[in-house]
Amino acid sequence: MNFEIISVGTELLLGQIVNTNAREISRMLSEFGYPVYYTTVVGDNPERLREALAIAAKRAEGIITTGGLGPTKDDLTKETIMDFFGKKPVLHGESLRRLNAFFAGRGRPMPENNLKQAMLPEGCFVLDNDYGTAPGAILETEKNTVIMLPGPPRELKPMLQNRVRPYLKERAEAAIISRSFRVFGMGESAVDELLAEEMQQKNPTLAPYAKTGEVELRLTARARTAEEAALMLEKPAEKLYQKLGDCLYAEGEDETLQSTVVRLLGKRGMTVSTAESCTGGLVAKKLTEVSGASACFHCGAVTYSNDQKERMLGVPHQTLAAHGAVSPEVALAMSRGAKETSGADIGVGITGIAGPGGGSEEKPVGLVYVSVCGCSRHAVKKLHLRGDREAVRERASLHALDMIRRCVLGLEIS
Amino acid sequence: MNFEIISVGTELLLGQIVNTNAREISRMLSEFGYPVYYTTVVGDNPERLREALAIAAKRAEGIITTGGLGPTKDDLTKETIMDFFGKKPVLHGESLRRLNAFFAGRGRPMPENNLKQAMLPEGCFVLDNDYGTAPGAILETEKNTVIMLPGPPRELKPMLQNRVRPYLKERAEAAIISRSFRVFGMGESAVDELLAEEMQQKNPTLAPYAKTGEVELRLTARARTAEEAALMLEKPAEKLYQKLGDCLYAEGEDETLQSTVVRLLGKRGMTVSTAESCTGGLVAKKLTEVSGASACFHCGAVTYSNDQKERMLGVPHQTLAAHGAVSPEVALAMSRGAKETSGADIGVGITGIAGPGGGSEEKPVGLVYVSVCGCSRHAVKKLHLRGDREAVRERASLHALDMIRRCVLGLEIS
Repeated sequence: MNFEIISVGTELLLGQIVNTNAREISRMLSEFGYPVYYTTVVGDNPERLREALAIAAKRAEGIITTGGLGPTKDDLTKETIMDFFGKKPVLHGESLRRLNAFFAGRGRPMPENNLKQAMLPEGCFVLDNDYGTAPGAILETEKNTVIMLPGPPRELKPMLQNRVRPYLKERAEAAIISRSFRVFGMGESAVDELLAEEMQQKNPTLAPYAKTGEVELRLTARARTAEEAALMLEKPAEKLYQKLGDCLYAEGEDETLQSTVVRLLGKRGMTVSTAESCTGGLVAKKLTEVSGASACFHCGAVTYSNDQKERMLGVPHQTLAAHGAVSPEVALAMSRGAKETSGADIGVGITGIAGPGGGSEEKPVGLVYVSVCGCSRHAVKKLHLRGDREAVRERASLHALDMIRRCVLGLEIS
Repeated sequence: MNFEIISVGTELLLGQIVNTNAREISRMLSEFGYPVYYTTVVGDNPERLREALAIAAKRAEGIITTGGLGPTKDDLTKETIMDFFGKKPVLHGESLRRLNAFFAGRGRPMPENNLKQAMLPEGCFVLDNDYGTAPGAILETEKNTVIMLPGPPRELKPMLQNRVRPYLKERAEAAIISRSFRVFGMGESAVDELLAEEMQQKNPTLAPYAKTGEVELRLTARARTAEEAALMLEKPAEKLYQKLGDCLYAEGEDETLQSTVVRLLGKRGMTVSTAESCTGGLVAKKLTEVSGASACFHCGAVTYSNDQKERMLGVPHQTLAAHGAVSPEVALAMSRGAKETSGADIGVGITGIAGPGGGSEEKPVGLVYVSVCGCSRHAVKKLHLRGDREAVRERASLHALDMIRRCVLGLEIS
C-alpha cells in the first residue's frame, strides 16, 4: 500500500509555519516500508481540498490528512472527506463524553461549536486525542484508506505514535530499519570520500546528513521483517566503526556529543568544570541540558573580560598582558583555572573571536582556542571556524565537548 | 499570478529532512501578495515529477521547484522541465566559468559530471549560485513561469533573497506587509481573549503564534502598494501597544528578549552578571549570542552544587542549610552574589528543579525561583513551570531576561 500525505492549512501556504507534521508521518511510513510518492499542502478551502483528494485517491491507496479537524467553520477536512467518499456523519458517543470531560476539567461548559468534533464518518475507526479536542479517524473505503489527523504537532505526534503506529505496523508488508551514527572531527566531503563505495549500495543504503560541525550517517535496510532488516545492517555497521575509528563517537538518533560526554564522565565518576569566553555559557548549557548532568558537571564560569578571567579563574595577569585574551596560553590557563579553582577532574577553557566584530588581521573572526586539562595531560587546539557568530560558537562548543571525550578516553587530541 | 511550489527530493518523502525550503518560498510569495494554493513534494523520479508538473502547470501560472539541480544522474529536475516544456539545453558560458572557478578555488579540476550544471534551458534567465555549484534558472513559457532553485537551504536562501526577490517584487500586483510584536508575561489564551475582536478582522489580520513561554503576534495587511499596506497597520498596531502594555516587549521578527535586554543595557551603559543553577548557563548563552553583548555582559557563574554557590557567589552557608538550594532566599543571595562579586550593575540568580529527577512533594519538578537585584531594588519570583527539562529551562531563562528588562525600565516585577 502506498500513501499520500495531504496537509491542510492556509498557514502552511503562507509560510507562517513549517510542515513538520509531514516529516513525522513520512518517517513512520518509511519505517514500515510504505512508499510515499507525493505529499501535498492545500489551504482551508473545501473545493481545493476536494481536488487534492481526487488526485490522491487515484494515485495512492492510503491517504493521510493533517489539520482541519478543529471546531471552527474553517475546519472542513472531515466534512470534505465524508462528502467526497459519500459517507454520513454520525455522533460518536465516546468522543462526545471525552469532549465534555475536557471542558469540565477546565471548569467551563463545552461551546456548541465543539459538538461537530464528535461527528465522525459512519463506520470509521476513531482515534482518541489525549492532548486536545479533535479526535482523529481512519476510514476504510472500497479503494482507499483515509487517516485523518489533527494539525497541532502536540496533538498529532502522540496520536501518530500511540494510535496510528499499531495500525500501520499490523498492515506493513516490508520493514525498514535504520541505524544512525554520529561523527565528529571529519568533514562531510572527507566522509563522502572515505565511504564512497558504501554509499553506492542499494540495500542497505548509507546516507550522510551534515549538521553544523558534525555529520550523521544513516544506514537503512529494507526487508520482509524488522529482524531481517536489522541483521542486514550488522556487517555494514561494523565496517563503519572500522573506517571511522574514534571519529564515530556514538550510535543512535538521539545521541549528541554532550550526552556522550555526560554518560562517559558518569561511568567513570569524573567531574568537569568549564571556563568560557566567546561561547558565553554554551558548553555549560549543552552539558546541563542532559538529564543527570548534576553528577558530573561541577561548575561553569563565563568570563568575557580579562578582569573576570583573572578573578574567577586565576589566569595570571602577565599571561593576559603578554599574549592577549585570545591566545593558546590564556586558553590553557582558563582550563587549568576551571579545574583547579573548582576541584573538578577536568577543566575546559575556550577563548576566541565569534564575530561579527572584534576581528583583526592577526586574530580574525573565527579564531578560537580550546583547551582541556585533566587525566594527567593537557592540550590546546587552534581553530579557524567558518560561519556567523552562532555557527562559530556552535562549532567551538562541539570541539570543546569532543576534547573532553578524547581526554577521558585517552584518545589523541589532535 | 498564483504559484505552486514543487519540492523535489526522495529524502523529503522518507521524512529524513523537514521541508523548510517550501516555507521560505511561501513566506516570500505571501509578502508580495502572490497566492499559493498548493505545494507538492515529489521524489527524484522523472515520471512522477512530470506528472506533478502537468498538474501544477494547469492550476498555477507560476511554478517554483527546489532540488534536483545537482551533478548526479539522480538530479533530473531541470532536464524534466526542459522536456515537459519543449526547451533545449544550451551551454551557459558564464556558469561554466563559475564552475571552473569554484573547483579551482578548492584546488582540483572540475569533475565531468558537473558540466551538466552549466547546461541550462534555452532563453532562460540564469540565477547565479554564490554558495554552490548549481545555478538556478527562470524559464518563461507561453502560459507558465518556472523558477528552478537548488535544494540545499544554504544555497537556496541567498538565491531566493538576492536573485528571485527582485524578480518577484517587480511583478507583484499586491503587497502584503506584516509587523511582528513580541509578548512575554501573558499566556496565549489570555492574549486570545484580550484581542478577540482584533483577531476577527479580515484586513489587516491579526494572528498569534505561541512559542515556548512567549507569544508572537503578527499583524498583516494587504494592499496595492507596500506603502498603503504599511499605513493600514498603523492604527491597529497602536491599539496593540495600548492593550498589551508592558508585556509587549519589542517589535520586529528578529527581536528576542535577549536582544531587547542587551540593547537596553547598552543604551544605559549598564552591565549584568548571571548566577545559574537549573538553567546551567542558558541565560548567559542567550545574552552572549547577541552581537555586542560584551559591552553589557559582565560574567556568569554556573553553580550546580551548594559548595560552588558558596565559593563562587558567596551564598551564606546558613542560608543554604536553613532553606535548601531551591528557595527564594538562595535565589536572592545568588543574584546579590552575582552582582557584588563581579561589580556589575545588575545580578540575576536562578535556582530550581528542571527535572526529570530531583522533584519532591514539597519542591516539585518545575519549581523555579528567579531573582534580580540592581537599580536600588530586588525581587524574587516563584514559578511553577510546565513541560520537560528543556521547556522548564527555556521558560525559566525567559523569566530571568524579562526580570532584567523590568528592573532596568523600572517596571513592576510581578
